[in-house]
Amino acid sequence: MTRTDHDVLGIGNAIVDVIGHADDAFLERRGLVKGTMRIVGAADADLLYSEMGPGVEMSGGSVANTVAGVASLGGRAAYIGRVRDDLLGRVFRHDITAARVTYRVPAAKEGPGTARCLILVTPDAQRTMNTYLGACVELGPEDLDRSLIAGAAVTYLEGYLFDPPKAKAALREAAEIAHAEKRKVSLSLSDPFCVERHRADFRDLLERHIDVLFANEIEICSLYETADFEAAARAVRGHCEIAVLTRSAKGSLIVTEEGTHEIAPAPVPQVVDTTGAGDLYASGFLHGFTRGRPLDVCGRLGSLAAAEIIGHVGARPEASLKELASKAGLA
Amino acid sequence: MTRTDHDVLGIGNAIVDVIGHADDAFLERRGLVKGTMRIVGAADADLLYSEMGPGVEMSGGSVANTVAGVASLGGRAAYIGRVRDDLLGRVFRHDITAARVTYRVPAAKEGPGTARCLILVTPDAQRTMNTYLGACVELGPEDLDRSLIAGAAVTYLEGYLFDPPKAKAALREAAEIAHAEKRKVSLSLSDPFCVERHRADFRDLLERHIDVLFANEIEICSLYETADFEAAARAVRGHCEIAVLTRSAKGSLIVTEEGTHEIAPAPVPQVVDTTGAGDLYASGFLHGFTRGRPLDVCGRLGSLAAAEIIGHVGARPEASLKELASKAGLA
Repeated sequence: MTRTDHDVLGIGNAIVDVIGHADDAFLERRGLVKGTMRIVGAADADLLYSEMGPGVEMSGGSVANTVAGVASLGGRAAYIGRVRDDLLGRVFRHDITAARVTYRVPAAKEGPGTARCLILVTPDAQRTMNTYLGACVELGPEDLDRSLIAGAAVTYLEGYLFDPPKAKAALREAAEIAHAEKRKVSLSLSDPFCVERHRADFRDLLERHIDVLFANEIEICSLYETADFEAAARAVRGHCEIAVLTRSAKGSLIVTEEGTHEIAPAPVPQVVDTTGAGDLYASGFLHGFTRGRPLDVCGRLGSLAAAEIIGHVGARPEASLKELASKAGLA
Repeated sequence: MTRTDHDVLGIGNAIVDVIGHADDAFLERRGLVKGTMRIVGAADADLLYSEMGPGVEMSGGSVANTVAGVASLGGRAAYIGRVRDDLLGRVFRHDITAARVTYRVPAAKEGPGTARCLILVTPDAQRTMNTYLGACVELGPEDLDRSLIAGAAVTYLEGYLFDPPKAKAALREAAEIAHAEKRKVSLSLSDPFCVERHRADFRDLLERHIDVLFANEIEICSLYETADFEAAARAVRGHCEIAVLTRSAKGSLIVTEEGTHEIAPAPVPQVVDTTGAGDLYASGFLHGFTRGRPLDVCGRLGSLAAAEIIGHVGARPEASLKELASKAGLA
């Protein structure tokens, strides 16, 4: 295999989060399903913003969070995603660049503004997300930087990219470029409703192009249309080299052709906000994976990174994950 | 005394904070003095932003934080401060309104953008602030809502308002309107360098117009040009009805003509970011004061609100201060 420029290249929706607190009654009155993501138009986003409590703005985007986590672990990370040349776009670019992630996509000079996601955190620390896709809607194959993909050990694709209409073609093309260079391709299923909307496309992409799959319990069950997690875990075996199945407080399960590894969750003194838990689990796992660590160590790195992120508000690490990994004997 | 519409009306610089982490070497290389605030121009703000790490955007502004805290304690709060009709201005308005603070000042349609403050949090949880005043520069007597001042039990003035050139006249006029209605006027000294820049004006305002003064140890020592805190505490006695002197981990001292009350700090499991500690102390104290509570209870409410804010990143409360006060037997 030729030399790599990056360990992990992420391709996803470039989003700035607006995180606020809400109670269950607020979600109910607006028909929001706790723990999920829905796409909203500009008018709905404005209305919800006017109704929600005070917010904190910070860069987000599922796979963008993952690559920021990889960089925090000391890995070489890069990102492809689309923003506008507006204030939120400048915030997104500043934050991902300051996190030492290579980000070269120029800001769009026209079209909808930079995407934002209104995140409502309930007292149980669960998050419910409302995404206005904005500038992400136009992401397509023309935004792919072929040399960046060719030079990355793993290209990591965001399942949410099935939502913007042209991005599906970009995902397929990115996977083809990566495999032509004998690189690995990874995918996150992102969200159960997202799986619901695009099940056939997801299964097709998985079986043709994916080496490492990330899914949580509900997502993998939705993918195989079963309520039985064990059945879903059996179903995914053989469809990809490694399936990483996360189960919140129950830890995670790593499924390969050869067998399974059960990973315990890392301890968290107080769960404050679960936003980004899956994203950061992927950071830890992929960092270990690109360093050639055994799969159980990859899983423990995932648990460690997820534990850091759920201890505070927001989906980008506040502490150096490299130092945390080192303290835990996983560096 | 006639009926009041609000317990506390704050007048201050309306600012959105950009909070990031930095180490001591970063501050040193840029000649920044830890724990203080400096005013920067637009170009310096852009340069520092490009050099600093990933940030979190959230509404700030010292006195705006205080009135948000008063509202969180269940008090009736209002605010006067100047923003532009830009994205940060909309964020500021959303957040303070969503915190249930009356805020009626229309956004400026021209001139510099909404103010922002680049806050660098060092590993010792201290914060160092770099403020681009933007739209705040134009605040003047014409922005005062006389009926709002006349209807507030306490009008609380931000010392930082001595920095924008026209605001000094607004502070004096606000104090005169309030006193003409037999209301109370309170002032925060804000920052030691701010005291240094405007010492004579501060002493003049204090002696003519201020009933309740808030200052930390360094600020009160700077005001009276002494290194001896006890001497400063003696000097301020008689210049205002109540002087509230905060001393970080050493607690606070309430000085009146009749005597002094020493207040212990409230316990904090982990100090994460001291941004807003003084602002929120003022929330608790003024809330107790406007409810006619004994001065030691006012001080304990101040300590409780300050303890909440330093346990997380940012200067607006994440928890309901009313519930915390109730649990502590102070409601």
